[in-house]
Amino acid sequence: MRLSLNTATVKKATLAQAASLCAEHGITGIGPWRDVVETAGGAKAARRLLDGYGLTVTSLCRGGFFTTFTAEALADNRRAVEEAADLGTSELVLVVGGLAPGSKDLPAARANVARALEQLVPYASGLGVRLAIEPLHPMFCADRAVVSTLGQALDLAEPFAPHEVGVVVDTYHVWWDPELFGQITRAAGRISAYQVCDWVVPLPADMLLGRGHVGDGHIDFAPITEAVRQAGYTGHVEVEIFNQSIWDTDPAETVKTVVDRHLTHLGPL
Amino acid sequence: MRLSLNTATVKKATLAQAASLCAEHGITGIGPWRDVVETAGGAKAARRLLDGYGLTVTSLCRGGFFTTFTAEALADNRRAVEEAADLGTSELVLVVGGLAPGSKDLPAARANVARALEQLVPYASGLGVRLAIEPLHPMFCADRAVVSTLGQALDLAEPFAPHEVGVVVDTYHVWWDPELFGQITRAAGRISAYQVCDWVVPLPADMLLGRGHVGDGHIDFAPITEAVRQAGYTGHVEVEIFNQSIWDTDPAETVKTVVDRHLTHLGPL
Repeated sequence: MRLSLNTATVKKATLAQAASLCAEHGITGIGPWRDVVETAGGAKAARRLLDGYGLTVTSLCRGGFFTTFTAEALADNRRAVEEAADLGTSELVLVVGGLAPGSKDLPAARANVARALEQLVPYASGLGVRLAIEPLHPMFCADRAVVSTLGQALDLAEPFAPHEVGVVVDTYHVWWDPELFGQITRAAGRISAYQVCDWVVPLPADMLLGRGHVGDGHIDFAPITEAVRQAGYTGHVEVEIFNQSIWDTDPAETVKTVVDRHLTHLGPL
Repeated sequence: MRLSLNTATVKKATLAQAASLCAEHGITGIGPWRDVVETAGGAKAARRLLDGYGLTVTSLCRGGFFTTFTAEALADNRRAVEEAADLGTSELVLVVGGLAPGSKDLPAARANVARALEQLVPYASGLGVRLAIEPLHPMFCADRAVVSTLGQALDLAEPFAPHEVGVVVDTYHVWWDPELFGQITRAAGRISAYQVCDWVVPLPADMLLGRGHVGDGHIDFAPITEAVRQAGYTGHVEVEIFNQSIWDTDPAETVKTVVDRHLTHLGPL
């Protein structure tokens, strides 16, 4: 499976630096975050930059955070769709958001995800962008994503065509799920992105930053990767690692490690 | 639903102190941990003590940690079964254990849970003790419990009679689960214990200790409690909170808070 570098893995690099490192190390894909794209002069400028390095934009991170279903959230998601289209990627990753402030109504928050998709799909689809629902680990259910499993993401995707709403398989978020392999099979045609990083214990104080390089933790990548492949996914595998000590490392060093681990655990570049 | 105090909530109290506080505050059930029972002179002495206060022992915490399937682990679980029987409770809570040291083989660890149940059920059943599988939050999958959902616990329970293998519903571990209500319905006849505490964000550095008093966090208790009741559960609700700052509080104060929150969120004592 070909390798893509998610820019969150090299947080202190600019888009130009990340792209240059990719080219230097034989990485053919890149998954930028919106803030990095903005700093690079916006989506059109970013695309020219990335085209110059021959990089495929595998996804844009991220839209979502629309469980409150506010007009602002929906408008921001339409902008994210436009940016994805301008970047030349068909996949906009969505982290759906947690409980509304002060609310304990999980079913209502989840219903708002379905409503937001209904609102956004026609617009995204018109621009050739697929909305890619990313289930987050259940430990983020209260504050970041009320969609916690691949099965739940697929239930939300089901009313829409496979080119309209997809799902993200991120090993960190789904590796524990007893239903994982069945749901990956079910996801055939809807896998927007396959993201990897490892589950390391103990988690640090900030749970968001507890992810490890592939191979440093407890996840068995081979069977998950094979299941994603068997489901017909032919895209890149995107390495997305949130980890303060990796962020503090020289990005060139990090990219080298990412490539080494990819070759060991995931196959050729 | 009647209230039971799990001794982990008042970690610095002895069993006698905890029992006395229960009696004083109108709490009719208690769920002791094995270490507390041992310190109280063993299960038979503990039972005399608790009988003296008129307390029902709602469960014993805990057996399990048998994903390595060692002879020692199985022997220790047989001792836990004997202690449950001596305490006069039919419910032995099992935290099944994480991945074996150095292993990434989650299916193998899960298969060992099924094998361990097969080994233990005849012995437990002979002593009138039900093995109560507790699914733990997926964030504990690597290191504490490879059983992460109520559905998965019920799949493991299914080969056995409802009086032989049950499940624990602990709000902290299962509140996020999109399948929760369906699985509680499915659990009818097998609910060994209903435990409560709240999900508070941000979690502290030690994830084990991040639980809050009922009402302090994001969990909506009423619908879960109602579902447990609808599933035919007639036992106590056991308050089990792991939280350093609660542990540092005077146990009498903690018990008072537990009672107040119970009356507000869960009903009469």
